[in-house]
Amino acid sequence: MKVLGLEASGIVASVALVEDNKLIAEYTINNKRTHSKTLMPMLDEMRTRIDADISDIDVIAVASGPGSYTGLRISSATAKGLGMALNKPIVSVPTMEGMAYNMWGANGYICPIVDARRSQVYTGTYYFEDGNIIEHTPTSVVLIEDLLSSLCKMLSADDRLYDNIVFLGDGVNLHHDLIVEKLGDKCTFAPAHMNMPSAASIAALGVKYAACGDIESASEHRPSYYMLSQAEKERLDEGKDIVEPSDY
Amino acid sequence: MKVLGLEASGIVASVALVEDNKLIAEYTINNKRTHSKTLMPMLDEMRTRIDADISDIDVIAVASGPGSYTGLRISSATAKGLGMALNKPIVSVPTMEGMAYNMWGANGYICPIVDARRSQVYTGTYYFEDGNIIEHTPTSVVLIEDLLSSLCKMLSADDRLYDNIVFLGDGVNLHHDLIVEKLGDKCTFAPAHMNMPSAASIAALGVKYAACGDIESASEHRPSYYMLSQAEKERLDEGKDIVEPSDY
Repeated sequence: MKVLGLEASGIVASVALVEDNKLIAEYTINNKRTHSKTLMPMLDEMRTRIDADISDIDVIAVASGPGSYTGLRISSATAKGLGMALNKPIVSVPTMEGMAYNMWGANGYICPIVDARRSQVYTGTYYFEDGNIIEHTPTSVVLIEDLLSSLCKMLSADDRLYDNIVFLGDGVNLHHDLIVEKLGDKCTFAPAHMNMPSAASIAALGVKYAACGDIESASEHRPSYYMLSQAEKERLDEGKDIVEPSDY
Repeated sequence: MKVLGLEASGIVASVALVEDNKLIAEYTINNKRTHSKTLMPMLDEMRTRIDADISDIDVIAVASGPGSYTGLRISSATAKGLGMALNKPIVSVPTMEGMAYNMWGANGYICPIVDARRSQVYTGTYYFEDGNIIEHTPTSVVLIEDLLSSLCKMLSADDRLYDNIVFLGDGVNLHHDLIVEKLGDKCTFAPAHMNMPSAASIAALGVKYAACGDIESASEHRPSYYMLSQAEKERLDEGKDIVEPSDY
């Protein structure tokens, strides 16, 4: 099964092509937010470099959120556009699970943290069992202080599986010192090559999801924002309904 | 510290830019061996995409072998050429260590295996301790049968650290069934997004090596082939000396 992976839910823009258990190509940029100008050109450059016929893919896997509103809109719109044009199904891979999958086989709980502004992070906790990723705590948006309190409780629970947590994601740069203050030697931080979202992880998980039939049509696919946008909050504050655009 | 990573020791061509603990960009292709036509264009495309001035880098980290003779010559020649032109030092990262670093934080021994033909593999074993990669068995070229016998002994030793081994590399495809036959449930196999060489891992290790002053000049750098080439073997068989070219 050949899966095209797309990850642009945050600052990273990443495209990858995976066939079964083989990464054929990956291109990742982690310095600019202009995904609308980079994602498709990166895909086209990668496709040309490997002389691939993009219509040969079986599935499009996309990081489905949470993350940046604009990033998610661009990556989901790209996935939907390609899916409709090529008549291919889409696999929605939760952003946090995709990030945690960077750490496949790791010894410890995995905790991606992505900046959600106002001292909040998008997060979740995961671990690996027999090569499979297991969700320990579902994706949520929480205050970093509250997250760290929950994690301290998790590490002191009698039924804990591990005594340590591996953190990754752009929230680490913002909250590194607080994490160390609260968790001491129970925390470690993923190194540069695996601490950010990656389309290769999304595509690798996409192979697994698709094999289980966990697919949707391009028209069905929606990203998961988890929080209302500022404009939506203001509409609600004014007593108005939130209307989803009919074309999305 | 800004490190340019190059990995073309095998079938994979990969370039990456890492600054301290941040991956800025990575571009990896795993389907063609024409590294002489792809490595520099991929670097140039990536550099242009992130609007980077390549003269800003501090160090060039290159996968130094073992691996394909041609691949190592191209990647080392590229590193030497850039290093000389830009007056930057080189960090030689052993290929096996770089591959094992893909699995940072993993629970188990890590065993990269790279096809060295005639039922031989380039290999080594590693594990992680306090976030550092530790070499358990140095890089060598061995018959796959002999390697698996050694690994069985390692797993039955009284002073073993783990009861399982994670395999990765192109040797897995060739020897998967034999590994499972010999090691049973003691073996696992890295998934698609982390089972091949990656310039991001090379660059991330390059930051660590360079911080310890483990650098060399571009003119000093040499790849480590570990085996004689067929032409060299034939010269020795004929009783002739092997002469290293003066320009390499």
